[in-house]
Amino acid sequence: MNSGWLLPQPEGWQDHVALALAEDLGPGDVSAPSIPAETRVDWYIEAQQAGVVCGVGIAAAVLARVGDVVEIDCTDGEVVRHRSLLLHGHGDARHLLARERTALNYLMHLSGVASLASRFVEAVAGTGCRILDTRKTSPGLRLMEKYAVRCGGGTNHRTGLFDMAMLKDNHLQAAGSIYEAVRAVREHLSPGMKIEVECADLNQVDEAVAAGADIVMLDNMGLADMKTAVSRHKGKTLFEASGGITLETVRSVAETGVDFVSVGALTHSAPALSVHMEFGVWSA
Amino acid sequence: MNSGWLLPQPEGWQDHVALALAEDLGPGDVSAPSIPAETRVDWYIEAQQAGVVCGVGIAAAVLARVGDVVEIDCTDGEVVRHRSLLLHGHGDARHLLARERTALNYLMHLSGVASLASRFVEAVAGTGCRILDTRKTSPGLRLMEKYAVRCGGGTNHRTGLFDMAMLKDNHLQAAGSIYEAVRAVREHLSPGMKIEVECADLNQVDEAVAAGADIVMLDNMGLADMKTAVSRHKGKTLFEASGGITLETVRSVAETGVDFVSVGALTHSAPALSVHMEFGVWSA
Amino acid sequence: MNSGWLLPQPEGWQDHVALALAEDLGPGDVSAPSIPAETRVDWYIEAQQAGVVCGVGIAAAVLARVGDVVEIDCTDGEVVRHRSLLLHGHGDARHLLARERTALNYLMHLSGVASLASRFVEAVAGTGCRILDTRKTSPGLRLMEKYAVRCGGGTNHRTGLFDMAMLKDNHLQAAGSIYEAVRAVREHLSPGMKIEVECADLNQVDEAVAAGADIVMLDNMGLADMKTAVSRHKGKTLFEASGGITLETVRSVAETGVDFVSVGALTHSAPALSVHMEFGVWSA
Amino acid sequence: MNSGWLLPQPEGWQDHVALALAEDLGPGDVSAPSIPAETRVDWYIEAQQAGVVCGVGIAAAVLARVGDVVEIDCTDGEVVRHRSLLLHGHGDARHLLARERTALNYLMHLSGVASLASRFVEAVAGTGCRILDTRKTSPGLRLMEKYAVRCGGGTNHRTGLFDMAMLKDNHLQAAGSIYEAVRAVREHLSPGMKIEVECADLNQVDEAVAAGADIVMLDNMGLADMKTAVSRHKGKTLFEASGGITLETVRSVAETGVDFVSVGALTHSAPALSVHMEFGVWSA
Amino acid sequence: MNSGWLLPQPEGWQDHVALALAEDLGPGDVSAPSIPAETRVDWYIEAQQAGVVCGVGIAAAVLARVGDVVEIDCTDGEVVRHRSLLLHGHGDARHLLARERTALNYLMHLSGVASLASRFVEAVAGTGCRILDTRKTSPGLRLMEKYAVRCGGGTNHRTGLFDMAMLKDNHLQAAGSIYEAVRAVREHLSPGMKIEVECADLNQVDEAVAAGADIVMLDNMGLADMKTAVSRHKGKTLFEASGGITLETVRSVAETGVDFVSVGALTHSAPALSVHMEFGVWSA
Amino acid sequence: MNSGWLLPQPEGWQDHVALALAEDLGPGDVSAPSIPAETRVDWYIEAQQAGVVCGVGIAAAVLARVGDVVEIDCTDGEVVRHRSLLLHGHGDARHLLARERTALNYLMHLSGVASLASRFVEAVAGTGCRILDTRKTSPGLRLMEKYAVRCGGGTNHRTGLFDMAMLKDNHLQAAGSIYEAVRAVREHLSPGMKIEVECADLNQVDEAVAAGADIVMLDNMGLADMKTAVSRHKGKTLFEASGGITLETVRSVAETGVDFVSVGALTHSAPALSVHMEFGVWSA
Repeated sequence: MNSGWLLPQPEGWQDHVALALAEDLGPGDVSAPSIPAETRVDWYIEAQQAGVVCGVGIAAAVLARVGDVVEIDCTDGEVVRHRSLLLHGHGDARHLLARERTALNYLMHLSGVASLASRFVEAVAGTGCRILDTRKTSPGLRLMEKYAVRCGGGTNHRTGLFDMAMLKDNHLQAAGSIYEAVRAVREHLSPGMKIEVECADLNQVDEAVAAGADIVMLDNMGLADMKTAVSRHKGKTLFEASGGITLETVRSVAETGVDFVSVGALTHSAPALSVHMEFGVWSA
Repeated sequence: MNSGWLLPQPEGWQDHVALALAEDLGPGDVSAPSIPAETRVDWYIEAQQAGVVCGVGIAAAVLARVGDVVEIDCTDGEVVRHRSLLLHGHGDARHLLARERTALNYLMHLSGVASLASRFVEAVAGTGCRILDTRKTSPGLRLMEKYAVRCGGGTNHRTGLFDMAMLKDNHLQAAGSIYEAVRAVREHLSPGMKIEVECADLNQVDEAVAAGADIVMLDNMGLADMKTAVSRHKGKTLFEASGGITLETVRSVAETGVDFVSVGALTHSAPALSVHMEFGVWSA
Repeated sequence: MNSGWLLPQPEGWQDHVALALAEDLGPGDVSAPSIPAETRVDWYIEAQQAGVVCGVGIAAAVLARVGDVVEIDCTDGEVVRHRSLLLHGHGDARHLLARERTALNYLMHLSGVASLASRFVEAVAGTGCRILDTRKTSPGLRLMEKYAVRCGGGTNHRTGLFDMAMLKDNHLQAAGSIYEAVRAVREHLSPGMKIEVECADLNQVDEAVAAGADIVMLDNMGLADMKTAVSRHKGKTLFEASGGITLETVRSVAETGVDFVSVGALTHSAPALSVHMEFGVWSA
Repeated sequence: MNSGWLLPQPEGWQDHVALALAEDLGPGDVSAPSIPAETRVDWYIEAQQAGVVCGVGIAAAVLARVGDVVEIDCTDGEVVRHRSLLLHGHGDARHLLARERTALNYLMHLSGVASLASRFVEAVAGTGCRILDTRKTSPGLRLMEKYAVRCGGGTNHRTGLFDMAMLKDNHLQAAGSIYEAVRAVREHLSPGMKIEVECADLNQVDEAVAAGADIVMLDNMGLADMKTAVSRHKGKTLFEASGGITLETVRSVAETGVDFVSVGALTHSAPALSVHMEFGVWSA
Repeated sequence: MNSGWLLPQPEGWQDHVALALAEDLGPGDVSAPSIPAETRVDWYIEAQQAGVVCGVGIAAAVLARVGDVVEIDCTDGEVVRHRSLLLHGHGDARHLLARERTALNYLMHLSGVASLASRFVEAVAGTGCRILDTRKTSPGLRLMEKYAVRCGGGTNHRTGLFDMAMLKDNHLQAAGSIYEAVRAVREHLSPGMKIEVECADLNQVDEAVAAGADIVMLDNMGLADMKTAVSRHKGKTLFEASGGITLETVRSVAETGVDFVSVGALTHSAPALSVHMEFGVWSA
Repeated sequence: MNSGWLLPQPEGWQDHVALALAEDLGPGDVSAPSIPAETRVDWYIEAQQAGVVCGVGIAAAVLARVGDVVEIDCTDGEVVRHRSLLLHGHGDARHLLARERTALNYLMHLSGVASLASRFVEAVAGTGCRILDTRKTSPGLRLMEKYAVRCGGGTNHRTGLFDMAMLKDNHLQAAGSIYEAVRAVREHLSPGMKIEVECADLNQVDEAVAAGADIVMLDNMGLADMKTAVSRHKGKTLFEASGGITLETVRSVAETGVDFVSVGALTHSAPALSVHMEFGVWSA
């Protein structure tokens, strides 16, 4: 079964993997000589904790080698339990030991992000509200982490500064008014991109809607104000709630009727999911 | 004050920053036109949470630009409180908004790692035991995260596969015996590197010491066995305890007399430290 | 005057320039020894043809060197005449001869694109219609050429496959229907991006509008059908006309009421603007 | 038939293609979800205009993928008509849509250059004169465009500053005399390279020949002077005519007896050749 | 036989080869057209001099091409004679001529280093002393040359500044004392690395041992002092002799009882081993 | 005095230095903590052996740092004696120790090449014959080593496969005849490049001259045949002698009247020139 590859992998993952391998291997694995050359072994990787797995395709690519066998036993985005089999194979022991840690580091980190995202998604199930990530990602890992968010059921907000316009307090302050900021951006913006305006109170919300904002961010606003904003402008714009929203509070926020909730913690504070690799044949 | 630079920065940080900026900027910041060209502003970055700060030098470099002012107000490794001033300056608004998120992402992530490391270090204060990191790092961020561990008072274990020999269960199994694995590695090893052997029980510890292991890892062993190992071989080798050690358990492990405790969570599960950037002049 | 720098330059221009210099310089300029070492000269670059200039900032950067003088005498996007002064300076002759051709190649190509774009923009002046570029760019020069289009008064369509959704005949055919294609894309799309649907006739236009397309492309449609489409759906969506539109036909297309006209020739077939560099002092 | 590969491709084309793909794909194709995963289609690329085709090997490589079929139906340098089949195949629809534009951009641009070169070559047929390109190429595309000139029947002048010596007015002026410039360059020049001297009048031609120039460039000289130069020095040196030569004037220039005519427009102003890709099976 | 691959190749050799090929090929092989396209030939590479061969795996990879045959006829580290067959094969003549020189350059240089190393190793045979290389390598070739030293029977000293601590006269002078220098380094050093101290006389040796140096370098010391140092501290530390040691003197140095002798000339002054490539079938 | 920079440095030297530094520094200098932070020292580099120095500009760039002083005390190509001062300065001790070895490695290797080249040049002084290098260079160091050859008074042969045509025995054999090989190459060759033909005997020489070879290589021919070849064809072509020519034999070869002698050993077997760096102030 090879279904981990059915999902389009994050762009540039091959270059990313090459850098990650280089930082671990450096000038070479000095422990390798303890393994007789051309020793071949069976191996498997299993989850040591329940969650949503992510990175099995990348891990497989890290471990692959001409003449070796790598099998993928689950799909990115799949729910796994303690002791679920993720991958297994048969190959050269020196090669595997030189790449094991890198493969596991991707799996642990990306599965951690996917697992946290899925908990937020579950928490708002049935409300119609969607969970968004943010640009608060680990430096160098943005596309990887955004892929993990998708695997966890979340939706990606903009990738970076280049694929939508977002006007925050500092923009508005410098432009003089929401209206002027929106107008100036619209003049140069590609027709395919929308404009979102961050608002701190209901007055700003009203002004943003009047200025033609495609999306309004309700930044650190109370539940009551969020409800008011939504009921006042439903259908004229989309609403994103943001600011310190946790697993405990997310459902009540979603129930205000906002279209989206964005959560920075998905990518900046997700604890790793525990996985390990063993030599031998896996048995359930 | 510019003391963040007194510490040697992680090798290659400039290339790392270039990649992180590129993933955020892509073909350019489409929100920039909302800011009138050449608008100049005061700004500051402050902590929103107590912890150990790390990355101020990198953040400063991200934000710097010829003709602008960037001042560093604390040192990597310094303890900060909620509302502590980290950096401040004066510069071009469009430039700052295009680089703010990248600067903050480094600060949040590295300060998160340093803060967690410092809590482990405090927990073992006075025991003589040192806290080590592991190779369980975020892919592509190893040197950055190991720098953060140092800033938090921790000690770096090997950087990768290349700067010491570490013989784990899979090596020992493939080699046939601890003695044979150590011998085979010693034959090719640079004279400047030590050999560590991972042991699961006291028999393996005895064998590893007899084989001449420079360091013995006590992997997931009970406190009683750790104490026995230490008392039996003190002075002949160094001991590292490893395996699921938490802030709650680390002191009792340290009190067994081991020289080191290694903690993967320092780098794979440290939550970010909250920091933000504001336009305007900071006041305490 | 240094105003060529006031426009934000295309992202990554420094790396682009490094590649362009490398392909010309290779292992070094073998003609250099004909120039006595450290010969210093005055120089200027002037237009040999009327048009809209683009690339003066890049040309300046190519020619710059510590200790030399480079002055920019016009702004990217400015209309120039035969013999208009673009840049001038004073510097090392060997250095200048090794970089002259690269500087001129950027100026010629980018000014060619900007000049053609400006002619299309003029042709639709007063209609409210905007001129868009396409993805039909010279391989490796996309951001450069899109910058030139902006300098010529045009508006950039999407940068690539990543910053808006565009559903063409092949997508629609594979998805089964316009409705299904739009639905499937919307499910995964970042909230900041719009969806454009390419339509070949009025039936498709009606279906696209019903499916919620943010923009409708009228692909190779006659003027009468374009007018019908616009009058039928004005206010519910935006319209882009596309397909073999020339300087001769563009105004009549614009007068149908479409919001945008896109022109591939802006970037794939713009003839270079003639410019040259002379040693000596320029006089008007 | 796979004959597009018989010609040695321009060095470094793989890296070039990787950059071109990256600028189009960025973080990924957001329109892809409209295509059901693993949809497989037939496709073909055909010319929409008569000309000389170039880039079929590169286009094939852009579109290729393990498990898909790509067939090349013509050879770089071949004359094609409206509706000539260039390539066809069968493959994954998402993959093809993500790479179609890049493949076509190479084909359009390189075929445009080859087509223009071939028209100049035809114009001088039978005179023995050869058509040369120049260093006036699109930045970053030099080796690609010079390959296209060869496919159009032209001959490549020097690749860059490194593979022959060319002394222009600025060199001569700085050196003091043609004789001195040639002498100084000869002293350091690799024995395998020739020296060309640019001359503006017959006096300079005489001096250049006396100085031992291997090639003399007749820069913007009249037909009568060109004839005189050739008849005066035939056999002692080679002659290259240069400067604003068009399809209308090139034959009369060639008939003066010069060995070469160089034309900057081949690479800086060639309009693209129109080609497109369709899903389905091609029929003549 | 393909045994050249049994040894793990130096990390990063593929990138190294790509650079080496690029510097030779540049924009392409202009002599290629003298060979009719698709000419296929037999070829072999043989030694023209006795020595220890190194680089056959790399040479094979340089010459390899899909559809061609490359066979390796010896192993890196093997002793060869004049006319020993190193590799042979069958392939495309243009391809082979474009890569022959690069393949031979690796073989000549690496075999030169391995051959010199093996002569030093032989010279100390039976003494128990090991021959070390140094950091005095050709810039950019360190990992390659250190691999060649291993193939010649030598042992690699530290790879660079990062994989052990080495305190030289300049460190000691700046630190104030050997004791202080060792203490300061130990405080930050990874537990897996050793500390070596360079000593110029017996007093420094005594101090270094007292300070806990893992290895003591006897720098340019006389044989008598070396013997004294070894007999005084045997078992407490390891000794490395260094400084101008030649093939003539190395055995007497080894007989002082030092554990290691390091020789810079292995990598900075090894003459190339002569090898050549011929078209045709090899016969002994 | 800063004259090392007056010579144009080898293209791409900055990237080369970056790679060389990276291979030595890796993740960082672990010995650095023995030096108190911000220790500042005087230093100098002097020759320990007579020869021709090369690489002082590169060494200076390796050691330079904002706020430090680096002075160059000789010029690349200058004859130096034992204890000649090459560079001196004042700077940060940790920085200097991290870069000392790389700076010295360039100086040692390049000065070794320049010194050997100068000995060959001296050996043929007065004969009019020039000394050429070959493509037998250390992989990755070609431009560096060719620069060193120039500094030693030698002349560079072709840089690589791309900047002149060279027809060797394998080309001639595949083409069928010298005449055919020359004709086929001439057809595609840029007008600025010459054709050299390798000849093994006088018959081949006659044929090569008849075919119009610009240069004839006399490969491993005896002195008598070389004299005959020269006297028979003087003025019609240039002659290069090649093949195992040593310092002992080079003058008699030059006296045959050949224009050039090429020597592979210049770059593949030049022993390093000994240089070292000391902390303190130099005194003659």
